[in-house]
Amino acid sequence: MSETLDRSHAIETGGGVIRLDRPLRLDSGLSLKRVDIAYKTYGRLNDDRSNAVLVCHALTGDQHVASAHPMTGRPGWWSRVVGEGKTLDPTRYFIICTNVVGGCMGSTGPASISPDTGQPYALTFPVITIPDMVRAQAAFIEQLGIETLFAVVGGSMGGMQVLQWAADYPDRLFSAVCIAAAARHSAQNIAFHEVGRQAIMADPNWCGGDYASRSLRPEKGLAVARMAAHITYLSEPALQRKFGRELQRDGLSWGFDADFQVESYLRHQGSSFVDRFDANSYLYITRAMDYFDLAAQADGVLGEAFRGAKGLRICVMSFTSDWLYPTAEARIVVRALNAAGARASFVEIESDKGHDAFLLDEPVMDEALSGFLMSAAFARGICL
Amino acid sequence: MSETLDRSHAIETGGGVIRLDRPLRLDSGLSLKRVDIAYKTYGRLNDDRSNAVLVCHALTGDQHVASAHPMTGRPGWWSRVVGEGKTLDPTRYFIICTNVVGGCMGSTGPASISPDTGQPYALTFPVITIPDMVRAQAAFIEQLGIETLFAVVGGSMGGMQVLQWAADYPDRLFSAVCIAAAARHSAQNIAFHEVGRQAIMADPNWCGGDYASRSLRPEKGLAVARMAAHITYLSEPALQRKFGRELQRDGLSWGFDADFQVESYLRHQGSSFVDRFDANSYLYITRAMDYFDLAAQADGVLGEAFRGAKGLRICVMSFTSDWLYPTAEARIVVRALNAAGARASFVEIESDKGHDAFLLDEPVMDEALSGFLMSAAFARGICL
Repeated sequence: MSETLDRSHAIETGGGVIRLDRPLRLDSGLSLKRVDIAYKTYGRLNDDRSNAVLVCHALTGDQHVASAHPMTGRPGWWSRVVGEGKTLDPTRYFIICTNVVGGCMGSTGPASISPDTGQPYALTFPVITIPDMVRAQAAFIEQLGIETLFAVVGGSMGGMQVLQWAADYPDRLFSAVCIAAAARHSAQNIAFHEVGRQAIMADPNWCGGDYASRSLRPEKGLAVARMAAHITYLSEPALQRKFGRELQRDGLSWGFDADFQVESYLRHQGSSFVDRFDANSYLYITRAMDYFDLAAQADGVLGEAFRGAKGLRICVMSFTSDWLYPTAEARIVVRALNAAGARASFVEIESDKGHDAFLLDEPVMDEALSGFLMSAAFARGICL
Repeated sequence: MSETLDRSHAIETGGGVIRLDRPLRLDSGLSLKRVDIAYKTYGRLNDDRSNAVLVCHALTGDQHVASAHPMTGRPGWWSRVVGEGKTLDPTRYFIICTNVVGGCMGSTGPASISPDTGQPYALTFPVITIPDMVRAQAAFIEQLGIETLFAVVGGSMGGMQVLQWAADYPDRLFSAVCIAAAARHSAQNIAFHEVGRQAIMADPNWCGGDYASRSLRPEKGLAVARMAAHITYLSEPALQRKFGRELQRDGLSWGFDADFQVESYLRHQGSSFVDRFDANSYLYITRAMDYFDLAAQADGVLGEAFRGAKGLRICVMSFTSDWLYPTAEARIVVRALNAAGARASFVEIESDKGHDAFLLDEPVMDEALSGFLMSAAFARGICL
């Protein structure tokens, strides 16, 4: 584990790539022989190895939770939450974030070289699932020599991974926090993802997935996919407040340029995304999310999926204006956790910021997260 | 006006194309020299010309409100509402529906031949607005020799046209019905349209709009645009009820085929749409909708836009699950109409069918529409 000292914070940060010491069995029935996991860590593992926190990223996130993104130079996607003096403080916790299997930031995914062919996997990469992602994380954590995580925390797809951890590895968790997520992808969620996939696959540069070997990139299709998805991350009131019908220039263009600020914003979201994300990864990860249905893993009874989670401290949070993973879905999760005897708490946060609220300035979320973790740390006997 | 007798209903139906007898002045400052309006009529104009009802169609609708679509053979888009014994009964009313300017079903639009070049307009077609569409309709109605419409009725973009009629030609209307619409396009509405436009323009077959002259069609881009839009026409509960997570086949494909029924449904919506709609028309009509802001036409005061509508009988309807044009927007319209002294009534209809409810089986809408029109017909002295 290569570690570098981030002197700006005087906190030890580490990172790199670790190869799993065994093949990864997949839900599809296939397996991945060679799996690399790209990761970042912040802080130090304490002597009794009890302060490790795994942060799980969302669809387009990555391991750079609190460090500058190597391609864009922008701050880590959750540097609001992770950092010295912040809710997830690396002076207290050993914070780990791994790029999911199927991702494109160093973990094995469709852009990786297949050991069988010496070529990028492209669409020969097996379809992966949220349980597969979590199985890889669990193997990674085991290789780090950590038996039990103090906490697993994540929002959106990260929250789905948290629920999967609670279902599959409850004995290896002391606590868990699931934010802005659901135990299954709804028809509307699937529909929006399918639009994105169709946009990518409609781009002739996609070449049936083989764009990399031809030095092409389906940038236009991926940008459209991102634009469609991005609308779902914001609430209607947030869009109205942020942009309304404000124009880019003094008057209308009477053409198809970006007249409205919201158009320009979306175009920027699309074009900046393609610089940092792989189109096939987008296909695979959205597919994993669509396939996610935790109850279906337990014969349709969600409470049964959590049967091992008795006594697990878990906090579920939702945002009132999140229409992608609405509060109703969070309540379903909480009821199932309660039925299974988990120590579940639930916080619905009043916010008009939509799904992306978990990434934004939401003091109530910070307080709830902080309070929950403090109490769990006290119970765990972690010296704060 | 060529008329044919539809013997199956023993109702006179007419239709064809009428060229406006003057150029059409446009909001952009440009004008269209030669404007054809494709139309359908159902029933007979009575002797005192007092029973004409103009039905305005939505974004992807056309003049075939109650007759089989000439390309798809499917029933007219509002044949549930328009027909003998139905709410808009051609034995009582002379029902007119015209294809909007900018459309692709016979009215002058971007696919039409420019009189200046002898080539399809493509992107040389001027950007048009909702007021432009209505100005063309008013000229058309005048050419038919109809001074006053008994009613103008429409849903979605059709409802926007209704509001524009109330603003621009209140003296030529006896009554009006605006369903599932708003007086302005919101940031979220614009955002979804922009995704659709970007999907079309990303298709290399679009060729900067000049696909027709190259015998190409940007079908993939247009299909993606339709898919994205279609999600917004349905509510989340409707999608969940209709499809949930039901699979197309017995098991998952572990690939990128349509696994879920909702995916297959969306793909079908996309692929069937491209058979009947022109991509450039989609750009122009969505642009017209985005530009729509009735208050902005009256220095920001919506009530002022309706200043001529004092005494106008107008019914505004919304659906509880319509998130594209929610009830809050309808209320804004009603308040402005009331402020202007119009005789506005408002019906919010409990429905989980989303925006498309106005096209679907909604008995409460039928009853409200029917009751409103009966009462107006009585006041107008139309013998029923």
